Amino acid sequence: MNLSNLLSKVASGELSPEDASAEIRDHGIADLGFARVDLHRKKRCGMPETIFCEGKTPRQVADIVTALKEAGQHILATRASKQHFDAVVSLHPEAVFHESARAITLDVGPLSEPVGSIAVVSAGTSDQPVAEEAALVAERMGAKVERIYDVGVAGIHRLVHHLDTLKKSSAVVVVAGMEGALPSVIGGLIDKPVIAVPTSIGYGMNLQGVSALLAMLNSCVPGITVVNVDNGFGAGVAAAMINRNAK
Amino acid sequence: MNLSNLLSKVASGELSPEDASAEIRDHGIADLGFARVDLHRKKRCGMPETIFCEGKTPRQVADIVTALKEAGQHILATRASKQHFDAVVSLHPEAVFHESARAITLDVGPLSEPVGSIAVVSAGTSDQPVAEEAALVAERMGAKVERIYDVGVAGIHRLVHHLDTLKKSSAVVVVAGMEGALPSVIGGLIDKPVIAVPTSIGYGMNLQGVSALLAMLNSCVPGITVVNVDNGFGAGVAAAMINRNAK
Amino acid sequence: MNLSNLLSKVASGELSPEDASAEIRDHGIADLGFARVDLHRKKRCGMPETIFCEGKTPRQVADIVTALKEAGQHILATRASKQHFDAVVSLHPEAVFHESARAITLDVGPLSEPVGSIAVVSAGTSDQPVAEEAALVAERMGAKVERIYDVGVAGIHRLVHHLDTLKKSSAVVVVAGMEGALPSVIGGLIDKPVIAVPTSIGYGMNLQGVSALLAMLNSCVPGITVVNVDNGFGAGVAAAMINRNAK
Amino acid sequence: MNLSNLLSKVASGELSPEDASAEIRDHGIADLGFARVDLHRKKRCGMPETIFCEGKTPRQVADIVTALKEAGQHILATRASKQHFDAVVSLHPEAVFHESARAITLDVGPLSEPVGSIAVVSAGTSDQPVAEEAALVAERMGAKVERIYDVGVAGIHRLVHHLDTLKKSSAVVVVAGMEGALPSVIGGLIDKPVIAVPTSIGYGMNLQGVSALLAMLNSCVPGITVVNVDNGFGAGVAAAMINRNAK
Amino acid sequence: MNLSNLLSKVASGELSPEDASAEIRDHGIADLGFARVDLHRKKRCGMPETIFCEGKTPRQVADIVTALKEAGQHILATRASKQHFDAVVSLHPEAVFHESARAITLDVGPLSEPVGSIAVVSAGTSDQPVAEEAALVAERMGAKVERIYDVGVAGIHRLVHHLDTLKKSSAVVVVAGMEGALPSVIGGLIDKPVIAVPTSIGYGMNLQGVSALLAMLNSCVPGITVVNVDNGFGAGVAAAMINRNAK
Amino acid sequence: MNLSNLLSKVASGELSPEDASAEIRDHGIADLGFARVDLHRKKRCGMPETIFCEGKTPRQVADIVTALKEAGQHILATRASKQHFDAVVSLHPEAVFHESARAITLDVGPLSEPVGSIAVVSAGTSDQPVAEEAALVAERMGAKVERIYDVGVAGIHRLVHHLDTLKKSSAVVVVAGMEGALPSVIGGLIDKPVIAVPTSIGYGMNLQGVSALLAMLNSCVPGITVVNVDNGFGAGVAAAMINRNAK
Amino acid sequence: MNLSNLLSKVASGELSPEDASAEIRDHGIADLGFARVDLHRKKRCGMPETIFCEGKTPRQVADIVTALKEAGQHILATRASKQHFDAVVSLHPEAVFHESARAITLDVGPLSEPVGSIAVVSAGTSDQPVAEEAALVAERMGAKVERIYDVGVAGIHRLVHHLDTLKKSSAVVVVAGMEGALPSVIGGLIDKPVIAVPTSIGYGMNLQGVSALLAMLNSCVPGITVVNVDNGFGAGVAAAMINRNAK
Amino acid sequence: MNLSNLLSKVASGELSPEDASAEIRDHGIADLGFARVDLHRKKRCGMPETIFCEGKTPRQVADIVTALKEAGQHILATRASKQHFDAVVSLHPEAVFHESARAITLDVGPLSEPVGSIAVVSAGTSDQPVAEEAALVAERMGAKVERIYDVGVAGIHRLVHHLDTLKKSSAVVVVAGMEGALPSVIGGLIDKPVIAVPTSIGYGMNLQGVSALLAMLNSCVPGITVVNVDNGFGAGVAAAMINRNAK
Repeated sequence: MNLSNLLSKVASGELSPEDASAEIRDHGIADLGFARVDLHRKKRCGMPETIFCEGKTPRQVADIVTALKEAGQHILATRASKQHFDAVVSLHPEAVFHESARAITLDVGPLSEPVGSIAVVSAGTSDQPVAEEAALVAERMGAKVERIYDVGVAGIHRLVHHLDTLKKSSAVVVVAGMEGALPSVIGGLIDKPVIAVPTSIGYGMNLQGVSALLAMLNSCVPGITVVNVDNGFGAGVAAAMINRNAK
Repeated sequence: MNLSNLLSKVASGELSPEDASAEIRDHGIADLGFARVDLHRKKRCGMPETIFCEGKTPRQVADIVTALKEAGQHILATRASKQHFDAVVSLHPEAVFHESARAITLDVGPLSEPVGSIAVVSAGTSDQPVAEEAALVAERMGAKVERIYDVGVAGIHRLVHHLDTLKKSSAVVVVAGMEGALPSVIGGLIDKPVIAVPTSIGYGMNLQGVSALLAMLNSCVPGITVVNVDNGFGAGVAAAMINRNAK
Repeated sequence: MNLSNLLSKVASGELSPEDASAEIRDHGIADLGFARVDLHRKKRCGMPETIFCEGKTPRQVADIVTALKEAGQHILATRASKQHFDAVVSLHPEAVFHESARAITLDVGPLSEPVGSIAVVSAGTSDQPVAEEAALVAERMGAKVERIYDVGVAGIHRLVHHLDTLKKSSAVVVVAGMEGALPSVIGGLIDKPVIAVPTSIGYGMNLQGVSALLAMLNSCVPGITVVNVDNGFGAGVAAAMINRNAK
Repeated sequence: MNLSNLLSKVASGELSPEDASAEIRDHGIADLGFARVDLHRKKRCGMPETIFCEGKTPRQVADIVTALKEAGQHILATRASKQHFDAVVSLHPEAVFHESARAITLDVGPLSEPVGSIAVVSAGTSDQPVAEEAALVAERMGAKVERIYDVGVAGIHRLVHHLDTLKKSSAVVVVAGMEGALPSVIGGLIDKPVIAVPTSIGYGMNLQGVSALLAMLNSCVPGITVVNVDNGFGAGVAAAMINRNAK
Repeated sequence: MNLSNLLSKVASGELSPEDASAEIRDHGIADLGFARVDLHRKKRCGMPETIFCEGKTPRQVADIVTALKEAGQHILATRASKQHFDAVVSLHPEAVFHESARAITLDVGPLSEPVGSIAVVSAGTSDQPVAEEAALVAERMGAKVERIYDVGVAGIHRLVHHLDTLKKSSAVVVVAGMEGALPSVIGGLIDKPVIAVPTSIGYGMNLQGVSALLAMLNSCVPGITVVNVDNGFGAGVAAAMINRNAK
Repeated sequence: MNLSNLLSKVASGELSPEDASAEIRDHGIADLGFARVDLHRKKRCGMPETIFCEGKTPRQVADIVTALKEAGQHILATRASKQHFDAVVSLHPEAVFHESARAITLDVGPLSEPVGSIAVVSAGTSDQPVAEEAALVAERMGAKVERIYDVGVAGIHRLVHHLDTLKKSSAVVVVAGMEGALPSVIGGLIDKPVIAVPTSIGYGMNLQGVSALLAMLNSCVPGITVVNVDNGFGAGVAAAMINRNAK
Repeated sequence: MNLSNLLSKVASGELSPEDASAEIRDHGIADLGFARVDLHRKKRCGMPETIFCEGKTPRQVADIVTALKEAGQHILATRASKQHFDAVVSLHPEAVFHESARAITLDVGPLSEPVGSIAVVSAGTSDQPVAEEAALVAERMGAKVERIYDVGVAGIHRLVHHLDTLKKSSAVVVVAGMEGALPSVIGGLIDKPVIAVPTSIGYGMNLQGVSALLAMLNSCVPGITVVNVDNGFGAGVAAAMINRNAK
Repeated sequence: MNLSNLLSKVASGELSPEDASAEIRDHGIADLGFARVDLHRKKRCGMPETIFCEGKTPRQVADIVTALKEAGQHILATRASKQHFDAVVSLHPEAVFHESARAITLDVGPLSEPVGSIAVVSAGTSDQPVAEEAALVAERMGAKVERIYDVGVAGIHRLVHHLDTLKKSSAVVVVAGMEGALPSVIGGLIDKPVIAVPTSIGYGMNLQGVSALLAMLNSCVPGITVVNVDNGFGAGVAAAMINRNAK
């Protein structure tokens, strides 16, 4: 089954939307020619396949959105540009663009009530897009999210007011660039899993985030785990998985 | 309060063990001259301070063990050599050496019943010491641990028999060297948090584990988090923290 | 013999095309001033010299195409932009542009019947241009090629349907970015030479493909060989050489 | 089934060798406690599982040898030290130590007649152990091997006498350290697959073979594929796989 | 003395060109505000100060040219863009732009007769700008230069015709990207100093010339010296210094 | 003047110690054959030449000590082993070995009264040798030094008691390995110059201190300067220079 | 308190500027939604919070400027583009743009008289923007600054005339790219703290300043401290802190 | 012809030394089994093949020495340990060990009179072995060598006395570790070719000489060429080649 062909048939009236939809749902994988969309991922891994927009054309993103929507799935597309959104929204007016998180969402029905509690903490103003990506994906996966932004170690007293929130979270995502010290400081104060996200923010020898990444991997505080540079998405997924099973 | 002095006084009979013990418990920090032992860590971070033996003399390790034991804490010392253990066991005959995990434990009373379930998976024979370190620390923090060893991607069918165990765990620690592909394969099959531990195993351009580390950071499967190369300890702590709060 | 001068003489009528053509064929090397085109390469290395377009002006590419065509050779130009193609097709209307493979081909006669079987496998949508480059060059060198795209390790079940094809190939080219795990998984299932191509696809610390490259070099599966990042061309040539001699 | 236990039973007379052997053959995987030996690998991947000795104790190597021999497989153990061999030969007197290749072999019957032709070329004296490893593993997999050693680019005339041999091989393994130029020179002269093996030979900034590795990955000659630094084993396997299917 | 002020006075008629010129010549260093031009360098180091245009505005380059010309020096400006040249030629119509070498020259009188012999060799078409820079600067320093272009190791027979020229040179500059093997091959055939210039040409993991640089530093042929990536200028200067003193 | 010869003459009675001493003092540089000792450095740079023992034989160190003592200079030798000290103390019984700082000192008269105040802070037990080296050299250059050890960010409350001391120092040296976060935390709390010293302490990907070095270079707190990994000596000198001029 | 809201209320007349200003001054931290501005930093760390413009929108910079001005603080914004300045100056006409230093300043009253003496030295023309940033920030923090530009080691005699100025400074900032040798040469001649700033100037393998950074970290002259590549700001702050306390 | 066999025959009396010698001289290449010694190299490249001892057994070195001596060549063996020398001198008592240069020499007759002039300069005591290697090989190739040691940039006045010697040399080899600044300083003062040799001397982040290597490659002084880290041998060869042709 090639979805592009199938959608063309729908467009030309050769196939009814209902029949097309049925045909798509019957198979776990939708073959779009340029991509095989994994429709059963939610069943297998607990989350729908997310569309990573970088390196895809607006048209390709819009086609995958269509396929997932046909299969009855809530949609999240990350690293989306305005161009990607324009292509999607022209076909699906209900799509929403989250500018700071650089993401597109589209709901095929009401989302379930958020549960538990995740804290997303960022060190500086420039780390915010990555933090927002983490927060948004965690929300899409059903978590209640507390955002605590711009509390870097240069003014560590700013962090103190939020200790209670941090201690009550099932997981804490900490986003920081430059020297990446914030996860260590937070991890030393609480007993909950800390997921550290290095960002490529900084100047000079930060090496596009390697500096923060290394600092986080070498944290003297045990129990901190790390995701790739700027990978707010991965951190949000990990935190939501932990939150989902937390009592 | 300097613990070495204090212990000398005990040795010389100047101070009774009871008084010494009381004096130590009164302070959160035991000053050993060469180290300030953080005795209140368990209260703050949910786990007792662990002794990292590498770079410490056998005598220093033994002194810290004594201080922690006096403070009534269960003890875990990682990266311990036989020399470290000999120094400890000569003072504390109840100490146990875990050779494959390169760790020393000493219980000051019965441990609590293990709860929940963590799986620790290793790819190859040589990854086992790191996996054992992760398993042991998780057990010390109260988790029930399933060990699944030597199931690397070169013979992926070996993994299949363990899928049920993996799916029922609250967190899965995956230890792998060389190309570090195992966490991606496992992460693609289950919906639980995967903590990946790269090891420095391999030959040629594995760069002491950088190869596996990069692979894990760049996993195409979202929700995998990573700890430092050979850091079984950190992975075990993170998994135990998740397990402790899991329903 | 300087080809530019020679072509100018043809343009001005000073020299007949037939005489020019003869003069070119007489020498193994055509001196274009900015490049010495190696016309006898096919005899020596079993394949015609391929034009690598990056870093060459459209005009330079067109001139080399002219020289090779005059020498009676089938032509393949890789890493070609639309601008390169425009310059070529304006002189040689029979030239064909392969957009996804970023390549130009021009046949000076019928190609020989494809023989044997090579499989070209890609992990993700974004790896496709590199895979297409490999497939195209292998086809130009006489191989029959099976394309198996978008079967990455995050959903390893997608690969299963293609095992028979892989097992019957004389060589398998596997193209993957991010953690580069796919060649290991495939190499563990078949007994044919696997040529791994890392791509610069990914985000964060993939270091423009170094992550995948290191993973492939460190594969725990023996017998996997590797080409440079994004070097679909090299992989295609290697696979075609193996295929040509396979029984 | 745990092989160590099983072998202990044999040692104590609790189990007859015949029964033990049968029990082992019945399962594809032999569980040695510290390792699960993959006994069906030959069927699946065309070669028996090879024992990589580095990082294993002599005792562990000897136990795996015993398991494989019980399963009726020819044995190859690479990166073997004299200590590894001593442990093996004390149990299996027919084992042979290949000092320059740092390998142990043990035949459970006559080997099949070598077929085809592979050339193994080395640039300098110090590259020889890696070249020998490649040659030996290719021979164990059934190939006829021609050794051409010490023909580096500093005296390129030394290579000329061997061109005919190279041109008749089904695959050529080229082992070189330092600037790693030899594969390019050879690849420019023949039309057969060249597998390049960088070695960690050199002084100063050769970075343990990275210098040669990068040179080989960046070869201007298409069709050269590369294995990891010092990975003669991998190159030998790849060459033997090509050779096995060559006409 | 600030040259900008001084030139402004000349422009406004406040100061005669002759007086200005005398004033400039009196000092070894001309202070342009943004730069102190070293006018006595030729006396000290045997070559006039060369203007490195990258990172300087066209206006700044033109002002330095004016200062050097006033001081009676032949001028060479490297890494010049068309914009730089336009600014210079509008003030000094006798300036010449060398497009392939990306350089501007301006003679304040007849150049001396070229002496000796330097060979400048390049491996590929794309290495030519760097080679031209080397050749031009050597010529400006009085050397006779032979250019031998596009003779890379993939077709090593192309080099043979030029051996005599190479053997008669007082120094040979070899420019190569990708695997950087050409200097080793040439160095193995002649007994003259070889200066190797790595270029940033290549694709994939050439790391902007690091690949070629490492290869050249690790050459198995003794006596090869290396300059920085793409530093044709430095190689030309070094070769000209050697040539000037050669018998 | 060659000092070895000169000292031999003294040993053989050919030259009186007084004459030898005078001869040495007359020259700013003492030529020891293998080293020219810079005796006037204190006048020029404000500190006596320090002997860096690594890579020097015990005998060489002892000879330089002799030369400096003859010239009437207080002596500091860093990175000294027990072997170095034994060679020195056999000739100069008044020499002192500082084991934790790995240094030898020898006073040729009373040291001046310490002035000002420098704080030397270390994060962990293993950072102490580097911290001691910094403290010792600062003391030798006339500074009063406060040592604050083992106050890393994993238990940031340990730092609080020392804030007053830090605020009253003219400069603060902060020594830390692993993630190197401590200088940022301290720098955010005080308004005095912070000199950060990364150490090679840590495990896994700390890359022998690169992790901490990068963190410190990328600190989000302005005004922190950094010295090389493990370079306690350099940090001590810099702090002492600042302290000397502080009011 | 969210400043954006607060400013909107002022704009709409809902709140008087006086009341708004009072409200801002009452809190140490002004919450702008995207940033929490640290208004009490001067009291804590001796300098007002500086605005780092890179990665912030012109509008964001202008809003922070407004907040700091409302709080009665002198303002310095670094890494400012012309666009940033335009946004600021349209709201605050008294703002000044320092083009070479890429900085914006705005005084809320007369600055205090400059004290002490700092020298800022640069090696080449292209290092000047970084040097100017250092000089400007030091001046904003109350220091008298001497600028000594374009005195690199290629013409070391240019440096001699400035030795007296260097010797009288309380701290010397040395800015250099390429081989970064200037701090070593200066540090060898004076007894004052030298703060070295590597710049990303150079071509070929300077690796965006890593070359100069490594040279400075490895200086054979003790007492040199280093800041990050191109971090003129940090060097200026450090020098001003030293200068402020110098007698 | 296999030399080992041939020498065995001589040892057993099967072959007379005269006949063996003749047989060896007849061929340009002596096949030693483990190495093909290039006996005609001197004719081709102007210098005899030098033996690089690292990675060769003492016996292998001794055999190559024998082969070269039989062929009537002066011998130089570099990177020789005492063990290598012992093996050589037991067969050839006239062999000489140069301890500081780590080299063995053996003359088969009187050396020719040294000509011209090369200066070898070293920055520090620890750079001396590399400098000695350069000096020795240049002498073996017929050059007169001036040694100028321990004149690093920390005390630049020490260099001044040697300027005349430097200016009269046909080439200057400059050996330096740490920040590698000395070649730039020397290159700025003279007009002769400077060959820079980085050494692996230093501590902390010198990265085994990469720091000095990068500094030298990025020198702001044109005309400096570089050899690999610690490659005194290569620098000596290059200088001798230049010197041989100098007038």
